[in-house]
Amino acid sequence: MPETMQAIVKSHPGRGVEVRDAPIPSYGATDVLVRVEAASVCGTDLHIYEWDNWAQSRIKTPLIPGHEFCGVVAEVGRDVTAVKAGDFVSAEMHVACGRCLQCRIGEAHICQNVKIIGVDADGAFAEYVVIPESNIWELDPSIPREYASILDPLGNAVHTVLAGEIAARSVAVAGCGPIGLFAIAVARACGASTIFALEVNKHRRELAQGMGADFALDPSNNDLGDDVAGIVRKRTGGNGVDVVLEMSGHPDAIRLGLEILRTGGRISLLGIPSRPVELDLARDIIFKGAVVQGINGRKMYETWYQMEALLKTGRLDLSPVITHRLPMREFARGMELLKSGEASKILLYPKGREAAI
Amino acid sequence: MPETMQAIVKSHPGRGVEVRDAPIPSYGATDVLVRVEAASVCGTDLHIYEWDNWAQSRIKTPLIPGHEFCGVVAEVGRDVTAVKAGDFVSAEMHVACGRCLQCRIGEAHICQNVKIIGVDADGAFAEYVVIPESNIWELDPSIPREYASILDPLGNAVHTVLAGEIAARSVAVAGCGPIGLFAIAVARACGASTIFALEVNKHRRELAQGMGADFALDPSNNDLGDDVAGIVRKRTGGNGVDVVLEMSGHPDAIRLGLEILRTGGRISLLGIPSRPVELDLARDIIFKGAVVQGINGRKMYETWYQMEALLKTGRLDLSPVITHRLPMREFARGMELLKSGEASKILLYPKGREAAI
Amino acid sequence: MPETMQAIVKSHPGRGVEVRDAPIPSYGATDVLVRVEAASVCGTDLHIYEWDNWAQSRIKTPLIPGHEFCGVVAEVGRDVTAVKAGDFVSAEMHVACGRCLQCRIGEAHICQNVKIIGVDADGAFAEYVVIPESNIWELDPSIPREYASILDPLGNAVHTVLAGEIAARSVAVAGCGPIGLFAIAVARACGASTIFALEVNKHRRELAQGMGADFALDPSNNDLGDDVAGIVRKRTGGNGVDVVLEMSGHPDAIRLGLEILRTGGRISLLGIPSRPVELDLARDIIFKGAVVQGINGRKMYETWYQMEALLKTGRLDLSPVITHRLPMREFARGMELLKSGEASKILLYPKGREAAI
Amino acid sequence: MPETMQAIVKSHPGRGVEVRDAPIPSYGATDVLVRVEAASVCGTDLHIYEWDNWAQSRIKTPLIPGHEFCGVVAEVGRDVTAVKAGDFVSAEMHVACGRCLQCRIGEAHICQNVKIIGVDADGAFAEYVVIPESNIWELDPSIPREYASILDPLGNAVHTVLAGEIAARSVAVAGCGPIGLFAIAVARACGASTIFALEVNKHRRELAQGMGADFALDPSNNDLGDDVAGIVRKRTGGNGVDVVLEMSGHPDAIRLGLEILRTGGRISLLGIPSRPVELDLARDIIFKGAVVQGINGRKMYETWYQMEALLKTGRLDLSPVITHRLPMREFARGMELLKSGEASKILLYPKGREAAI
Repeated sequence: MPETMQAIVKSHPGRGVEVRDAPIPSYGATDVLVRVEAASVCGTDLHIYEWDNWAQSRIKTPLIPGHEFCGVVAEVGRDVTAVKAGDFVSAEMHVACGRCLQCRIGEAHICQNVKIIGVDADGAFAEYVVIPESNIWELDPSIPREYASILDPLGNAVHTVLAGEIAARSVAVAGCGPIGLFAIAVARACGASTIFALEVNKHRRELAQGMGADFALDPSNNDLGDDVAGIVRKRTGGNGVDVVLEMSGHPDAIRLGLEILRTGGRISLLGIPSRPVELDLARDIIFKGAVVQGINGRKMYETWYQMEALLKTGRLDLSPVITHRLPMREFARGMELLKSGEASKILLYPKGREAAI
Repeated sequence: MPETMQAIVKSHPGRGVEVRDAPIPSYGATDVLVRVEAASVCGTDLHIYEWDNWAQSRIKTPLIPGHEFCGVVAEVGRDVTAVKAGDFVSAEMHVACGRCLQCRIGEAHICQNVKIIGVDADGAFAEYVVIPESNIWELDPSIPREYASILDPLGNAVHTVLAGEIAARSVAVAGCGPIGLFAIAVARACGASTIFALEVNKHRRELAQGMGADFALDPSNNDLGDDVAGIVRKRTGGNGVDVVLEMSGHPDAIRLGLEILRTGGRISLLGIPSRPVELDLARDIIFKGAVVQGINGRKMYETWYQMEALLKTGRLDLSPVITHRLPMREFARGMELLKSGEASKILLYPKGREAAI
Repeated sequence: MPETMQAIVKSHPGRGVEVRDAPIPSYGATDVLVRVEAASVCGTDLHIYEWDNWAQSRIKTPLIPGHEFCGVVAEVGRDVTAVKAGDFVSAEMHVACGRCLQCRIGEAHICQNVKIIGVDADGAFAEYVVIPESNIWELDPSIPREYASILDPLGNAVHTVLAGEIAARSVAVAGCGPIGLFAIAVARACGASTIFALEVNKHRRELAQGMGADFALDPSNNDLGDDVAGIVRKRTGGNGVDVVLEMSGHPDAIRLGLEILRTGGRISLLGIPSRPVELDLARDIIFKGAVVQGINGRKMYETWYQMEALLKTGRLDLSPVITHRLPMREFARGMELLKSGEASKILLYPKGREAAI
Repeated sequence: MPETMQAIVKSHPGRGVEVRDAPIPSYGATDVLVRVEAASVCGTDLHIYEWDNWAQSRIKTPLIPGHEFCGVVAEVGRDVTAVKAGDFVSAEMHVACGRCLQCRIGEAHICQNVKIIGVDADGAFAEYVVIPESNIWELDPSIPREYASILDPLGNAVHTVLAGEIAARSVAVAGCGPIGLFAIAVARACGASTIFALEVNKHRRELAQGMGADFALDPSNNDLGDDVAGIVRKRTGGNGVDVVLEMSGHPDAIRLGLEILRTGGRISLLGIPSRPVELDLARDIIFKGAVVQGINGRKMYETWYQMEALLKTGRLDLSPVITHRLPMREFARGMELLKSGEASKILLYPKGREAAI
C-alpha cells in the first residue's frame, strides 16, 4: 500500500479544484478502505466546483468530493465482517446518525443529522475512499461493472418511481438529466403504461426516447414548445397522468406537472427548486385530491435491494445515459462538458484504472 | 302533502337571499323526498349570500342553498328500496357521475363531474329537499339527533384525520372553524397524542381546548401571537409534529404548518386558499420527505360508516361547536353571526320544526 | 334480429350440456344486448359440465353458462348511455348488489350478494348475452381482439399480482393453469425479479417458461420432482421468495408456498382448495410475520383499467396460453381437452362467428 | 458495586428454577448495565419453568430468564452515549443481527437471526441485567413507573392493534391474557368502535370489560358458552367484525375468529398454536378477500414510540391487568398463580427493591 494517492481536491473556498497528491485516508475499526475503480459526476459536484451559494454555505475545505463510485475493498478495520479485501463494492454515501427519530423508525434516508461522504467528508474522487461498514454495499457479480458507479443516482430514480404505485400507470417525467432518464427506464421496467418525458434540451429528449419514453415533449413556453397539457390530455383519455416524477426543480415544470396530473394522482418531487415556488394549491392539489411526496436520497437499504433485483433482470438498459468516460485528472473538462449540456452521466477513472476507459 | 313550502331562495344574482314560498320539489323514480328537520350553515353559504367571485362564477339562480341537514323521509320514488317513509336520514350532497375514471375506481369523492345539492341544485334550506337514493344515508337511531345535521362537515374532518395514520401521532390543527374543531375531537378519539390547535380567534381557541386540544396557540405575527414553532418543537422532543391538518386555507397557516411538520410527516390540506401560495418546496417538502395530501369532500361512503361508528362509541362530544339554533327564516341573522366571528356552527330549523330549537 | 339463437344449455341437473336453440334474451332499460364474438372456457365451466358437488349446490337449471367473452353491442336499453350498437365490448360478469357494506366502501369485488352471469344467470356460451350497463367494458381498439375474450381470467391474474408490491420482488407462482400463466406474464411486465413457476404438468411448465418464468419447477413429491425449497433458497440468497401467488388450490402447494416464502413476505391465495387445509401457522405465518391475502375476482373497475393499460403497452404476450379455438357447438370436445391436460385456454366461437377460428 | 447478585437461575435441564447468587454480569464497550427495579412474568417464563418441549429445544442452561423489566442505568460501556448512569430505562429484548435482509429493510422485528435476552442469553430476573446500547429505551418521566416493566407485552399489543386500520372499526380480541387485555385498551384508545372480547375464563372476561370491551363473550363449545357468531353478527349489522386480533393461539379460537370476520376484514395472529391448524381457506379467507397477518414482537422502534405516545396521553389504564406483585425470590409462587388462572400480569421485585411492592 502506497502512502499517497492522486485526488481531486477542493483545497480552499472559491471556484475550481486541484488535482494533487493526498495521503491515503486512515480508517477505524468499523471502516472499509476501498480502491476506487470508477466514480461518476453529479450536479452537486458542479455546484462545489463552481462554488455557488449552496456550496459556500455547506462545504468545508479542504475536501475531496465524489459520492458516486464503485471499487474493490483494499483493507478493512478490525471489527468489520460484512466484506473482505477483494470484494467488489459500492456504497450508500448518506451516513445516518442512527439515533434520531427517523433513523429509529426505519426512515434513515431522512435522518435529521445525515453526513454525506463527498460533501461533508472526503469522498470518492481519488484512488481510495473510506466507507463505514454499515454503508458498504457488496455488488452481485451479475451486475454490469459499467453500472456499478452510478447506483447512487439510480437509487434516487428507483426510490422516486417506487414511492407509489407504478404498474399500469401513466407517468410524466419532468426533467431528463441522468436521474430523470433512469426513472424512465425504471418506470418502463416496472410496468408503467404511457410515459411522457418533458425536457427542454433536444439531446436529452432523444436520450429519453432511447430509455423508453413514449412521448418526449418540449415544455418550453415559446414557438418551439409542445402543447404538453393538450397532448397529455389527449393521450390519457382526458384524465391526465396518474403519476408525475419531478426531476428538474424548475418552478414552471412543477406547476406544469401539477396541471397535467390527474385528479387523485401522485406527484413525487425530487428536483430541488433554488427558490420558493408559487402554487395554485386549491385547483392543483386540494380539489384534485392529489398526493405530493417530497423525495430525498434512497431508502436504506430497501432501495439498494430493489436496484440490485432490477439490474439482475437485465431489463434496465442504462448505457445511453453514460455519455463520457474520462481520466479522473480531467475533472475540470468534465465540468465543462456538463455545463455545455452535451454530457449526461460522466464516469471518471482514477490514476491506475484509466485502462478501463 | 301541501303544494308549497317555505324556503331560503337566492332568487337572482347579487347579495342576499329571500325567505319565500316555493313549490314542494318534484322527484323521480330513484329519488327520495325528505322533510327537513334541521339544516346547518357552512361557510359556502356565506359566499353564496355575499355573492363573492366564487359564487358569481358557480351559482345559477334561482337556487335554494343548503347542503347540511337531517330529516325524515316523506315520500320515495317508485324504484327506491333503500329507505321508506318515516326513516330518519341525512345525505351525502356530492352527487357523483358514476362514469368517470375516479368514480369507477372507488374515488367518487373526487368525481370529475360532481354536482353538489345546495350549490348546483336546490338544497336543504327549505321544508323539503330531494335526494337521489344512492346518496341517502339512513341514520342509526343511537346517533344524537343534534348531530344528524352536521354530518357533512364532520365527514370532512373524519376524512382528513383518517387520511393517514393518526394513532399515537402528534397533530397540529390549523384553523378552528367547525371542521377544525371536529378534527380535534376526531383525532383525540382516534388516539392522537399531543394535539396543537392553531387559531387567531380567541373564542375559537377556547372551543378548541374544549374539544380536546392540549395546546391552543395564537399564530398571529404580532405581539399577541405565540411562538408556535418554538412551542411545538419543545413539546415534540425537537422533532415537530407528525401530522398537520390544515383547515384554514390561509397562506401563512400553510407555511407555518409545513415549518412545524416533522421530517417524514404528513400534512393534509382541506382549507381552500383564495389565491396561489408561495412555498419553500426544497426545505419544507423535498428535504423533509414530507407527504402533502389534498383533501376534498368525504369518501363515499367509507367516511359515512366511519362517522357512524365513531358517533356510536359516544366518544365524540361535538356539542360545543353548535353555538346557535335559529328559525330558518332568520337565515340573514345567521349570516351576520357568522361574519361577526361569534358563531361556530349554526343550526336552522325550518317552518314547522321550530319547536325543536 | 332473429328470435332464437344457438346456445350451450345446461338443461337439467346432471352431467353434460345440450347444444340447442334458445330465445334471444330480453333486456331491460339499463341492459345491453351483446352479439358474442368469442367466449372462453374456465375451470368453473368444467365443474358445471361434470355436475360436481359445487355445481349441484350452486347451479339452477336451465342455465346457459359462460362468463368469459367479447362481442359487439347489438342493442341497448332505453336508459343506456355508456355504449351504443356496434361498440366492441367485454364485461365484468360479477354483478354486485350496490347496497352491502363492501359495495358502499369500494370493495364491490367482494360484494356479499354477488350474482355471476354464466353461473347464477344466463351467460355467454350463446350467440347473444345480456349485460347490465354498469358491467359493460368498452374495449380500447388497440387491444388485440384475440385477448378480448380472456379479460376475466387475466383480471384475476392482474388483481392477484398487483394486490401488493411486485416490482423488484422475487415471485413464485404455484399452479400454471391459465391464470397462473397470465400471472407470470403480468409479474414479468411489472418488474418482478426472479420468477419461479411451480407446476406438476410438464406441458404447463413449458408454457410457464414461454411466459417468462426463470425457473419452471416440478413440485411433485416423487423421484421426478425438483427440490423446490432448496432451489428457491439457493436462488434467493437463502431468504426465500418475496411473493407467492397461489393459483392451484392444492393443499401441498399452499404449504410449499408458505415454506418458500421469505420472512415478512406476501402470499396471495386465489386457487380454491376443495377441502380444509392444515397449516403450521406458528412456523409459516406468525413467526414469519407473513401476510396472507384471500383474492377474489377482480377489482371493479380498477383492475379493468390496469389490464387495459398493461395490454396497451404491448408487453403482455398472452398468445401461448390460447391453445385451442373451437366452434362453440363443440363445447363437449373442449371439456375433454381440458380434462386431458392438453389444453390451457380454449376459445369458443358461436354460430355465425366460426370464420374467425 | 457488589460482585454478586440474587438471581432466578435455570441451572440445568428439567422442571423448576433456583434462587441463588450469581456474578454481576460483565459488559462490553457498547453495553449498558441496568439495576433492575421490577420485572414481569410472561407465559414464556412458564414454559421455561415447566421445561416443556419448546423449552427443551430452545433453552441452553444455565440461564437467567426474564425479558420484561425496567430499571436504572448502573454503569455504561465506554462507547455508550445514548444513556448514562441514573437514567430510568426499559429495553427491547429482541436483539437483531443488523445484517439480514429484514434488518436492512427496516423489519428488524422479524430478524432471521434474532437473539432474545432472557431466552437465549441471561435476562432480567436478577438484580442486574446487561443490555446492548442499541436496545435500551430511555423512559419518558411522565410514564407511570408501574407500567415501565410491562412495555414488552404492551408493545406486542400495540404492534398488533396498529398493524392495520383500527379507528372506527369493530374489533374482536380472542384470548384475554395480558396481551389481549392490553390490546382491548389500545384499540379503545385508538378509536375502535364495538369491541368484543372472547375468553373462556370468567375472571379474564371481567378484566376485559374493565379494559373497555363492549361485550365479553364465552366461546366455549358447551352449555355455558355464548353464541359468539350470532351475537357478533347481530351487533355488526350482519357483517361481522372489521378486525380480529388473535391472542390465544387456540385452533378453535382462530377458526371462530375467521368465521366472525367480515368479508374484506383483517385478522392478526399473535397467539402461537402448539400444533398445525386446519382452516377452511376457501370459505374463510379466499372468498372473503380476508387479510391474515402474522405478528411477531414489536417494531424496532416505531412501536416503542407509539407506546410512549399512547401512555403519555393518559388514556391507557393498564392497572387492572397487574394482579400481583411479589418479591422476585417467590418466582415459583408466581408460576403457581399463573397456572391457577388467578393471575394476569405478575410483577417481580428483585432483592433490595422489594419495598416498592
